[in-house]
Amino acid sequence: MPPTISLLTDFGLTDEYVGVMKGVIWGIAPGVNIADITHAVPAQNILHGALLLGRAYRYFPVGSIHVAVVDPGVGTARRGIALRVGQHTFVGPDNGLFTVPLSSGEPFSAVSLDNPAYQLAKVSRSFHGRDVFAPAAAHLANGVPLEALGEPVSDLVRLDIPEPLRVANIWQAQVVLVDAFGNLITNLSEGDLQGQEVVEVRCAGKLIQGVTLTFGRAQPGELIVLFDSAGSLSLCAVNGSAAAVLGAGVGAAVELRVK
Amino acid sequence: MPPTISLLTDFGLTDEYVGVMKGVIWGIAPGVNIADITHAVPAQNILHGALLLGRAYRYFPVGSIHVAVVDPGVGTARRGIALRVGQHTFVGPDNGLFTVPLSSGEPFSAVSLDNPAYQLAKVSRSFHGRDVFAPAAAHLANGVPLEALGEPVSDLVRLDIPEPLRVANIWQAQVVLVDAFGNLITNLSEGDLQGQEVVEVRCAGKLIQGVTLTFGRAQPGELIVLFDSAGSLSLCAVNGSAAAVLGAGVGAAVELRVK
Amino acid sequence: MPPTISLLTDFGLTDEYVGVMKGVIWGIAPGVNIADITHAVPAQNILHGALLLGRAYRYFPVGSIHVAVVDPGVGTARRGIALRVGQHTFVGPDNGLFTVPLSSGEPFSAVSLDNPAYQLAKVSRSFHGRDVFAPAAAHLANGVPLEALGEPVSDLVRLDIPEPLRVANIWQAQVVLVDAFGNLITNLSEGDLQGQEVVEVRCAGKLIQGVTLTFGRAQPGELIVLFDSAGSLSLCAVNGSAAAVLGAGVGAAVELRVK
Repeated sequence: MPPTISLLTDFGLTDEYVGVMKGVIWGIAPGVNIADITHAVPAQNILHGALLLGRAYRYFPVGSIHVAVVDPGVGTARRGIALRVGQHTFVGPDNGLFTVPLSSGEPFSAVSLDNPAYQLAKVSRSFHGRDVFAPAAAHLANGVPLEALGEPVSDLVRLDIPEPLRVANIWQAQVVLVDAFGNLITNLSEGDLQGQEVVEVRCAGKLIQGVTLTFGRAQPGELIVLFDSAGSLSLCAVNGSAAAVLGAGVGAAVELRVK
Repeated sequence: MPPTISLLTDFGLTDEYVGVMKGVIWGIAPGVNIADITHAVPAQNILHGALLLGRAYRYFPVGSIHVAVVDPGVGTARRGIALRVGQHTFVGPDNGLFTVPLSSGEPFSAVSLDNPAYQLAKVSRSFHGRDVFAPAAAHLANGVPLEALGEPVSDLVRLDIPEPLRVANIWQAQVVLVDAFGNLITNLSEGDLQGQEVVEVRCAGKLIQGVTLTFGRAQPGELIVLFDSAGSLSLCAVNGSAAAVLGAGVGAAVELRVK
Repeated sequence: MPPTISLLTDFGLTDEYVGVMKGVIWGIAPGVNIADITHAVPAQNILHGALLLGRAYRYFPVGSIHVAVVDPGVGTARRGIALRVGQHTFVGPDNGLFTVPLSSGEPFSAVSLDNPAYQLAKVSRSFHGRDVFAPAAAHLANGVPLEALGEPVSDLVRLDIPEPLRVANIWQAQVVLVDAFGNLITNLSEGDLQGQEVVEVRCAGKLIQGVTLTFGRAQPGELIVLFDSAGSLSLCAVNGSAAAVLGAGVGAAVELRVK
């Protein structure tokens, strides 16, 4: 069984771009399974793409190949890369999209995608998803070794994802992602809060007390704080949008008092 | 050839949730075919999901496994179930999503999804689509018997889908679904009207006469009444939205005079 | 490995229609790979569908079968066809959707889809995507010869896609497609301009000088002219919508002065 390929882009589903990438992949690696993670990353928002990819990739089978294309630098000198971290492989532009796996602490190896033998015969200036990344992923799925795709590289671009900060019994966190339901997802994870009890949470001038960390006891409309399905502390409005209720978005400060 | 898995949710395609479910499925059942029915069920609208699933599932191959997740009760005591009706299997929350196959009159068997051997190692409070339902479907696709997934159950939740009523030559029906084109889909089916001629239809104060039950003779903008592709009597505006033209939606009364 | 099937429709992803087509295909041709090109063709816009299909199909593997359904004439006397052009096969209504491959100059053969043995047992008036086209594609994927599906036909419908016109050093072109980013895609291709230098471009009363044909040197917001990834001359606003900036859409005249 060939490995699974996942796709994450900001191309949308209105034009032919995503379908064309699948056509190219199947032309090289017939029958490989392809799953869309999403194609609705906000245009050119690399951080958003990096965080979604970071939330998703570990749920894919060992050996999966993840193609991510949020690529404002296409057509410039930015490199294309293939990157292996643990048992997952990533293909896309070297612009920080792979910051989460690169920050996992696992050893990695990476190459610059400069071997034309593993690209389409004609490489356009504006669609490397089709001409470079899809072919690279398909050849990897066929068993071509990573090193065949190009020269080793190690100085990969990483985004500066803000870290939460604890001073005494106060955590200073930040909203890093807003999902389609308006949930405000912070950079604070379940692991960070292990053994601590959250007394109150402050965001956008609003104080949330009696934090329950579960949906169960809350009323529709109520603001709650919980660990979402990826283990990130999130602010949610039951059956509503916390982003709308709080007027807050990416970058908003979230302060937690713990004991 | 392993069976086909279909997915129907209210998750949307903006976040990573649907892709993650596919990753989980392929981690357990590599190479199984997965078709999206839709992920645009209005949030938490179980009836809408149940009706779409009811319109779709019989067109899938015998032996298919249908995962449906519209799940306002996730994290509460509501059960997860796997349900076999005829030659189709359904996996999801026990909240009425499977009312249409359960009402088919075919014998069924069902289990509560309580065997942790067929769930992810860690089950979150908020994403059973990933942690419980996707794994259950994948194990079933691998040939695990239904009974292995948990204890038998029979008292399944069913939605109260309104039935059309005939008194003399008048049918009292209802709009139960509005599709993306604004077509008003009623609870009256082709079978109900066999051998009868529709004289006129009344909805939202508007009378439609000379019912043709076909698109052919109508003019753009005209309101028409026909059996849609699933055999349900529907009110449509040619090249337009009947919902907008009539200002009507789910629950609107539709009265037919037949002879 | 069975051939790949691509799907292009105006059905949207909100209702169950696309999923049902996949269910039907897999019921006949288990395991065939299916890629969505797009389901967001503007409703009943045959030209838009034809142009997107024309941009996409050559990137699919040799032997692929492309099902396209933008079908305002469903339920009327318009024919369904299967069409082979070079090494690609097309299935859908005979309404011009396949104008681009038909205009490629390659020899073609086509049949009218009138053999009921390769349709669903019951053919609805309104959903031939499910009842006629999906089954035809699946049977073709299984190796059924084109000629088995129906009678040969040759007088196929072709859309009148406007051709660019050159008089002396002036090209008169037209916008034929607007993509989801607001890029204005013209009917002028890279081949048409071979060996010529574009001096200036005029559209919607605006003059674009110093045409660079690349993204590289432009500033955000700036109007630029380039060959897009399909080789078509396009007007783009860097990180913006040229359609919005120029107030122009399909049919807008584009005049190029070359030397």
